[in-house]
Amino acid sequence: MRVLGVDPGLTRCGIGVVDGQPGRPISLVDVFVVRTPPTDDIGARLLGVERELERMLATHRPDAVAVERVFSQHNVRTVMGTAQAGAVAIVAAARHGIPVALHTPSEVKAAVTGSGRADKDQVGVMVTRLLRLDAMPKPADAADALALAICHLWRGAANARLSAAAAKVPVSRLPKGSAQKGWR
Amino acid sequence: MRVLGVDPGLTRCGIGVVDGQPGRPISLVDVFVVRTPPTDDIGARLLGVERELERMLATHRPDAVAVERVFSQHNVRTVMGTAQAGAVAIVAAARHGIPVALHTPSEVKAAVTGSGRADKDQVGVMVTRLLRLDAMPKPADAADALALAICHLWRGAANARLSAAAAKVPVSRLPKGSAQKGWR
Repeated sequence: MRVLGVDPGLTRCGIGVVDGQPGRPISLVDVFVVRTPPTDDIGARLLGVERELERMLATHRPDAVAVERVFSQHNVRTVMGTAQAGAVAIVAAARHGIPVALHTPSEVKAAVTGSGRADKDQVGVMVTRLLRLDAMPKPADAADALALAICHLWRGAANARLSAAAAKVPVSRLPKGSAQKGWR
Repeated sequence: MRVLGVDPGLTRCGIGVVDGQPGRPISLVDVFVVRTPPTDDIGARLLGVERELERMLATHRPDAVAVERVFSQHNVRTVMGTAQAGAVAIVAAARHGIPVALHTPSEVKAAVTGSGRADKDQVGVMVTRLLRLDAMPKPADAADALALAICHLWRGAANARLSAAAAKVPVSRLPKGSAQKGWR
């Protein structure tokens, strides 16, 4: 299975592609960080992100796209840019008929480091180790995009097992709100 | 000049097209509200919005696109959907080389009613009057999209005059922060 992870942003948007199967070593396919100048208008910046995403999708033809789920608690400007770049990634994947999943930063950190509160550096160290790289991917957006892809590979496998198990249980027996919630 | 206004949203996304020149009556070209089911995943919903936007852009070939500027003070879920649908509109316009402008809800209300605190109904009444329509465009998203287009027609003319005047003043004489800020 091949997953393309996106750490969305306007100033820097990380795109990382990883191959893997549950229970087997994972490997790096490609990683790229799109940068768009803050002096450009928002249309030109989003278009810059879209073009590189399209190029990576066409080159690597992933089976799934994983995008960071954005919350609006943080800095307004940053959150808006992140939400906008994320939307460009989501709609690009949908246009190609590729399933899209959203993972929170703490889900990603927990997946690769074992702790949802890990710092950037710890995520970078684990991404380097898990993908058996010679050096840590830089900038942090590159490592974060790869971490998203790894998180999706692993959670995808776990969710598939959970769904298979849940399919055997009548819906009325499931705890309230146990259905996976999308980012709507 | 032809302006396509977008009141972004996932559940309902208003798209309104208006023709006009400063100092002359304005006229309705087309108005449409895209609806996407909350049960669909985010990728399918954004794709639904993108398709209708592309159709309207191809049909009406506007000179400019005006999108509502989103703030993240409000409900998190709603704001995210609005930011995502807005990003899809901005990048679609940029792809076609059409200039994009963002206007705040209070700028739009002030443009069509004279008050930045006008309610939805007042905006609807004025849109109906200004475009000489027989009935108020429904739902409110349709009227809001048309109000955005009207706001842009009028503010565009005013901004062009201001820019022309400012071009004659050395930049150092302009008050700090007087340059128009984009939504980055």
